[in-house]
Amino acid sequence: MAAPSPGYSITLRVDGPPDFGATTRLAHVVAEAGAAVQALDVAESSGDHVTVDVTVHGTSEEHGEQIRAAVDAAEGFTVRHVSDRTFLLHLGGKLEVVPKVPLTHRDDLSRAYTPGVARISRAIAADKSDARRLTIKRNTVAVVTDGSAVLGLGNIGPEAALPVMEGKAALFKQFAGVDAWPVCLATQDTEEIISVVKAIAPVYAGVNLEDIAAPQCFEIERRLRDELDIPVFHDDQHGTAIVVYAALINALRIVDKEMADLRVVVSGVGAAGSAIIRLLLRAGVTDIVGVGRTGAVHRGAELPDPMRVWLAEHTNPRQVTGSLQDVLEGADVFIGVSAPGILTGDDIATMADRAIVFALANPDPEVDPVEALAHAAIVATGRSDYPNQINNVLAFPGFFRGLLDAQTTSISDAMLSAAAEAIAGCVADGELNSSFIIPSVFHPDVAPAVAQAVARVAEEER
Amino acid sequence: MAAPSPGYSITLRVDGPPDFGATTRLAHVVAEAGAAVQALDVAESSGDHVTVDVTVHGTSEEHGEQIRAAVDAAEGFTVRHVSDRTFLLHLGGKLEVVPKVPLTHRDDLSRAYTPGVARISRAIAADKSDARRLTIKRNTVAVVTDGSAVLGLGNIGPEAALPVMEGKAALFKQFAGVDAWPVCLATQDTEEIISVVKAIAPVYAGVNLEDIAAPQCFEIERRLRDELDIPVFHDDQHGTAIVVYAALINALRIVDKEMADLRVVVSGVGAAGSAIIRLLLRAGVTDIVGVGRTGAVHRGAELPDPMRVWLAEHTNPRQVTGSLQDVLEGADVFIGVSAPGILTGDDIATMADRAIVFALANPDPEVDPVEALAHAAIVATGRSDYPNQINNVLAFPGFFRGLLDAQTTSISDAMLSAAAEAIAGCVADGELNSSFIIPSVFHPDVAPAVAQAVARVAEEER
Repeated sequence: MAAPSPGYSITLRVDGPPDFGATTRLAHVVAEAGAAVQALDVAESSGDHVTVDVTVHGTSEEHGEQIRAAVDAAEGFTVRHVSDRTFLLHLGGKLEVVPKVPLTHRDDLSRAYTPGVARISRAIAADKSDARRLTIKRNTVAVVTDGSAVLGLGNIGPEAALPVMEGKAALFKQFAGVDAWPVCLATQDTEEIISVVKAIAPVYAGVNLEDIAAPQCFEIERRLRDELDIPVFHDDQHGTAIVVYAALINALRIVDKEMADLRVVVSGVGAAGSAIIRLLLRAGVTDIVGVGRTGAVHRGAELPDPMRVWLAEHTNPRQVTGSLQDVLEGADVFIGVSAPGILTGDDIATMADRAIVFALANPDPEVDPVEALAHAAIVATGRSDYPNQINNVLAFPGFFRGLLDAQTTSISDAMLSAAAEAIAGCVADGELNSSFIIPSVFHPDVAPAVAQAVARVAEEER
Repeated sequence: MAAPSPGYSITLRVDGPPDFGATTRLAHVVAEAGAAVQALDVAESSGDHVTVDVTVHGTSEEHGEQIRAAVDAAEGFTVRHVSDRTFLLHLGGKLEVVPKVPLTHRDDLSRAYTPGVARISRAIAADKSDARRLTIKRNTVAVVTDGSAVLGLGNIGPEAALPVMEGKAALFKQFAGVDAWPVCLATQDTEEIISVVKAIAPVYAGVNLEDIAAPQCFEIERRLRDELDIPVFHDDQHGTAIVVYAALINALRIVDKEMADLRVVVSGVGAAGSAIIRLLLRAGVTDIVGVGRTGAVHRGAELPDPMRVWLAEHTNPRQVTGSLQDVLEGADVFIGVSAPGILTGDDIATMADRAIVFALANPDPEVDPVEALAHAAIVATGRSDYPNQINNVLAFPGFFRGLLDAQTTSISDAMLSAAAEAIAGCVADGELNSSFIIPSVFHPDVAPAVAQAVARVAEEER
């Protein structure tokens, strides 16, 4: 399923013969090697040679090597250098900390630093809540990970997680003006993580937990919510749940079904799966079955942690058992947050009429979207190269914008639902169709709509 | 000694009569009230009134109230509003976190976030040292405090310390391009502080400890230096010591004395005082006496912590005892990092010929600089409204710039000395005089010179 991707974008600097057809031949060689040519520039040209920079999207690192080899093997061409755009973009990191105040004259220093700043400190010492007005606590969120469950890479630790957290922070700022700072912890002990986050909390107005493995992520979020006076939000749980719910709201409008009548199957009962289930139960879905690695979750199943116990007690009213394929038969909705390639088109064919399939395993979905579309009414994935991309970026920036603006101390389920409804509402009636059930991440109205919805709920709950 | 300061800068919006002389009379009223007029603008003007924005520097918050009252009392004038420039500047904090990479198109997301970022994470997972190249660890320092000894305000806690840490971070960026992030801890327990800093260390290439009280600051710095693989620097100790040493190097050139021949008295044996003493001992000073609250430090004195024990064993070769005034007699150099108003001109008069006085208590020095100058050859303070301002901003930005560029894992005393020599060297022979012994904080050569000196030592020590 691998298509050329900008994630594997390389620029090859190639020397070739100085004849008219050289650049065309080079482009041909590259395309024959399966790469998508993005740009081609003649960097140098002389009587005896031409130097060409050709930028391509490959499908993987190995493919990049193959492209290089193919160009080198072509008659008359030599690769002088290969630059990897993704690596180049990451040199020195993706964030910087920038002053918002002038610091070029002595008067500036006297206000932003000593002696002027002492007055600000004294004001906050007299009334701690003034920190929310007079410091970065007004607008800043900690993005906290222990590196134990990063993207599809698993437990890679805090240093390797840092580029992902930097990206998260960049997205917070770009999409909602929220200042976010990476906190990558050199411990994976639950108690230590809780301790450290509590110790660093004074600077922040919210905590976004990220890429922390289940089941410890549930306890960490619960304990921090209890023990901190700022909101705590595990995006892998609730961000995913919000966007899935938003997509489902709109999908149901197309297939004309009601939440309460649905039979829903969720593959994957880790962080994302259990949060999706909880939010859908709140939305009025009653018949929902979670499927883990050992099959459907039911009261007689192996229940290795408190969240699994809770799911067993609150889901699967018909107490079905068996494999994913078993429970999928006759279901209206399949939501996958598990592993690639575990279903085929034939499995989807066993679902109910006008079925909805959200196959969100990353990078490759649970079922081939094209195969699924032969049998389902609506198909969504997490990928940007298919329609209906379910992407947490639709939720977390606006969600935290709303929390910060309301200066709320906690998060309620009502906020999650309101955020989902706001996202769904950004697809106008006239736009809604089976290939367009959720807005693009670049839709400028999404983050403000989510922020307003969350802030409104916060006000009502005050 | 209070002079009008930009730290107490207010703007009064005043309504007055519409005649020609109104603005002049207003300026006069303000000046009579002891304020320095900075700016005056007619904001509105009509047939029946004029509205004037007058910006002044006062000497204190109370003074601001007096100025307002004086204007209100003056015939024909009414104060509509008072804006405090220092408070306005602090609204929402003084820092923001900004992406360094474009995020406006889907290709941007694919490189900066998923799936492209996964390749960067995999590279670092395979080789952790690559974090120094591919993440913000290349350029970022944590500014860590527990709020236990903030400026002249004492133990005000983490929230109240945050504006000071924000200012510190702004200075790091402005003067040396170092990204610095405030870490204000909700604990003052030594073991917990050490634990937390170790846990958050993966993101950073250095730690600047700030405003942590003695004597725990010594243990915290020592333990973190032992247990982390990134450099740890308590600026209140070593930044102060570096700049004091730099000033002394140049002062000795003027008074024509040698380090080894000096009798030095240091008032204050907390963080700054003990670090100054240690650096001067390394510089070849042998006769140095520290004076604490209970008098001169000597082997028979009360020695309440390990640092005080060390000082007793390594200083005061003549084992003098008594008060500050007692030991000051005949001294060549007085360095004060203690409390205001503890010495008079008469005390300075008992010092040796061509005496050097660095009275650095903040905001008011140990002795009135004008009185001191009647008896000493060279006088320096920490204040910006006298010549020879000894200000840590001359040291810490360039120092960390050098550490980051050398990617060093630790700090040596040789780096401190090299930094001081670099600062001193920024005053050219032709510029050097008793009122100009250290460069201005705005001298563009200082931070680069310090950075190069530190990096050079790091290379030699590799």
